[in-house]
Amino acid sequence: MAGIERIRSVAARVRREFGGGNEVLVVVSAMAGETDRLVQYCREAAPLHDPTEYDVVVASGEQVTAGLLAMTLQSMGLKARSFMGWQLVRASGIHGNARVEAIENATLDEALSGGTIAVIPGFQGVSEDGRVATLGRGGSDTSAVAIAAGVKADRCDIYTDVDGVYTTDPRIVPKARKLNQVTFEEMLELAGVGAKVLQVRSVGLAMRAKMPLRVLSAFEDVPGTDIVAELSGAEMERNQIAGIAADRGEARITVIGVPDQPGTVAAIIGPLAKSGIPVDMIVHAATPDTGSSDLTFTVPRAVLAQALAAIEALKDAVAYDRLVSDDKVAKVSIVGVGIRSNPELAATMFDVLAERQINLLAVSSSEIKVSALIAEDQLDLAVRVLHSAFGLDQEQAA
Amino acid sequence: MAGIERIRSVAARVRREFGGGNEVLVVVSAMAGETDRLVQYCREAAPLHDPTEYDVVVASGEQVTAGLLAMTLQSMGLKARSFMGWQLVRASGIHGNARVEAIENATLDEALSGGTIAVIPGFQGVSEDGRVATLGRGGSDTSAVAIAAGVKADRCDIYTDVDGVYTTDPRIVPKARKLNQVTFEEMLELAGVGAKVLQVRSVGLAMRAKMPLRVLSAFEDVPGTDIVAELSGAEMERNQIAGIAADRGEARITVIGVPDQPGTVAAIIGPLAKSGIPVDMIVHAATPDTGSSDLTFTVPRAVLAQALAAIEALKDAVAYDRLVSDDKVAKVSIVGVGIRSNPELAATMFDVLAERQINLLAVSSSEIKVSALIAEDQLDLAVRVLHSAFGLDQEQAA
Repeated sequence: MAGIERIRSVAARVRREFGGGNEVLVVVSAMAGETDRLVQYCREAAPLHDPTEYDVVVASGEQVTAGLLAMTLQSMGLKARSFMGWQLVRASGIHGNARVEAIENATLDEALSGGTIAVIPGFQGVSEDGRVATLGRGGSDTSAVAIAAGVKADRCDIYTDVDGVYTTDPRIVPKARKLNQVTFEEMLELAGVGAKVLQVRSVGLAMRAKMPLRVLSAFEDVPGTDIVAELSGAEMERNQIAGIAADRGEARITVIGVPDQPGTVAAIIGPLAKSGIPVDMIVHAATPDTGSSDLTFTVPRAVLAQALAAIEALKDAVAYDRLVSDDKVAKVSIVGVGIRSNPELAATMFDVLAERQINLLAVSSSEIKVSALIAEDQLDLAVRVLHSAFGLDQEQAA
Repeated sequence: MAGIERIRSVAARVRREFGGGNEVLVVVSAMAGETDRLVQYCREAAPLHDPTEYDVVVASGEQVTAGLLAMTLQSMGLKARSFMGWQLVRASGIHGNARVEAIENATLDEALSGGTIAVIPGFQGVSEDGRVATLGRGGSDTSAVAIAAGVKADRCDIYTDVDGVYTTDPRIVPKARKLNQVTFEEMLELAGVGAKVLQVRSVGLAMRAKMPLRVLSAFEDVPGTDIVAELSGAEMERNQIAGIAADRGEARITVIGVPDQPGTVAAIIGPLAKSGIPVDMIVHAATPDTGSSDLTFTVPRAVLAQALAAIEALKDAVAYDRLVSDDKVAKVSIVGVGIRSNPELAATMFDVLAERQINLLAVSSSEIKVSALIAEDQLDLAVRVLHSAFGLDQEQAA
């Protein structure tokens, strides 16, 4: 949220939802720049600050917005009141990165059923020791979902910087189309591979809580995207591929000449995972009758140096030949619930890429996703041809 | 409090108090400009805002300082934690202007006796309905005193913009001297007539709670002034007059030809008081055998027009002749516990003013104060000659 103008515009949206006969509960974020300002204060006060005190300082940003939105709604003639996180959101876990445990909602239920719009600061609750606890940066989405689940809402609308979930990144494919519906699983795969719309944690929580989400623009009044457990109505007939995800921040590591015996893959991947380095797209192929094999995998490019150093340290223990890496790679994925039942979709993907002379450096697949690692300078081309081949371009949809 | 630098300087002062073997509890205000910024947000969001939502927004300023001071103290190697107003300050009364009712201090006592410095946001508590309640603008002083009383502190130190209580305004009399001690009653009279050091309400509360106060500079490390129930030690021998108060913001109203019968004074003063206009220095003198009298009093200059309009409205009911007013008047007062036992002090005051040809427009007195209304352009002269005559000038004290 930016300044008071933004709060007024949110209030107008809330009024319309309420006017539609709904009980409305609003979870708000801090105004633009506020959280950064508060985090900066903490850094200046004490570089190694106590997370419980950090929570006290940083949680104030959303509290301010909650009070301001409640009074703005009142000035429009609506009944509204703010609730603080400590009044109803029980959280547990680590300060600065807590989880919502339960919503104490007697007063809240009473307010809602009495026609009062409830406004709640996102991103915070009260910890087991009775203190303010924040849910981690960007936690507003997650607390909105948790609160929606806690009060058994029919739906949780999330107003964001984007106006919905697209078939792919519109900066790469201008013909990208906004999806009406996407399943939780598809959304998780799309988010996980680069479509930065919602926090992955909030989508996972909504999926477990079976809480339908709607992603809407906080700026423009246009239809958004529903994120649901099962596609419904016309959407069931939609294209089997929901979208094409592109992820540039990848690096490939190949460990050459790994002894072909049980446990060597674990001996390499295990220490990386323990150091907090996420490893993806693992391909392990033995060369028959040589007793030796190569192990290829990807890591986020930002931690490549760290990952290489960790594997160098294993050279004696694992006895591999040598190590090569490539940080000019990218990952392109097709995502869709249709993949589960139709193995030909993966084959189509490989055909389309081959036609354009795009070489596959590695491949991985899950029930609803197939990913290919390719040269980074071919990523935009790959996304465009796949988007078109799977019938996702706007003209074809219309 | 200004930025992080100010918080560091406060932390250094707190460390010294703690190092002196004291249990220390700190009540903090918002950083410089913060409260104004938050109040401005409320005005922009809704000109007629709900005081409960106003409280939510404005209370956040002190919460931020509390967290930041706690983490700064920790970074100095001290044990410290913040408590929020809602965790221990029970308040009652009107939102935006609540009163401290009690301090729930089990956890607080435990922290203090365990050597932890407690940091508490001033100006706020939790209301009977479980919501954030602020104690009114400038309420940090008052909440500090209430919290000090609630935890039975030995003393409450208040760090302010000034470094103590002076015998008079040093801008008028450069020889004004800082008092080592002043009684609560003297402080109330000095504060009430213009020495803007502490909120009147905080001094009244300290007097009732028998909580000794110390006023100190928040900027300079110099001795301050103790505010106590009874003067002690060498101070008992000090001058009988503690100080000279000067108040410029006065206006005089004279209602001429008021019928000399019971109830007419009340008929005029009553409606003013009901409109929230404070009336001071009431002088009612009947002209013998005429059946008529004049009524003179003062009001703050800022509400003179409002007061005159209110009295105009009473013309038919009260049947007075006419109304005159003068907004070029000021009030000079001598304040001291010595006045109680020494009526000659008032006579000395009148002599000194008469010698300088300063005309007395009205006079009022209480047990520890004598005030004279004079022409505004004679105020500085009056303060200087009284300050000198009562032996308050710095040289004479040394």
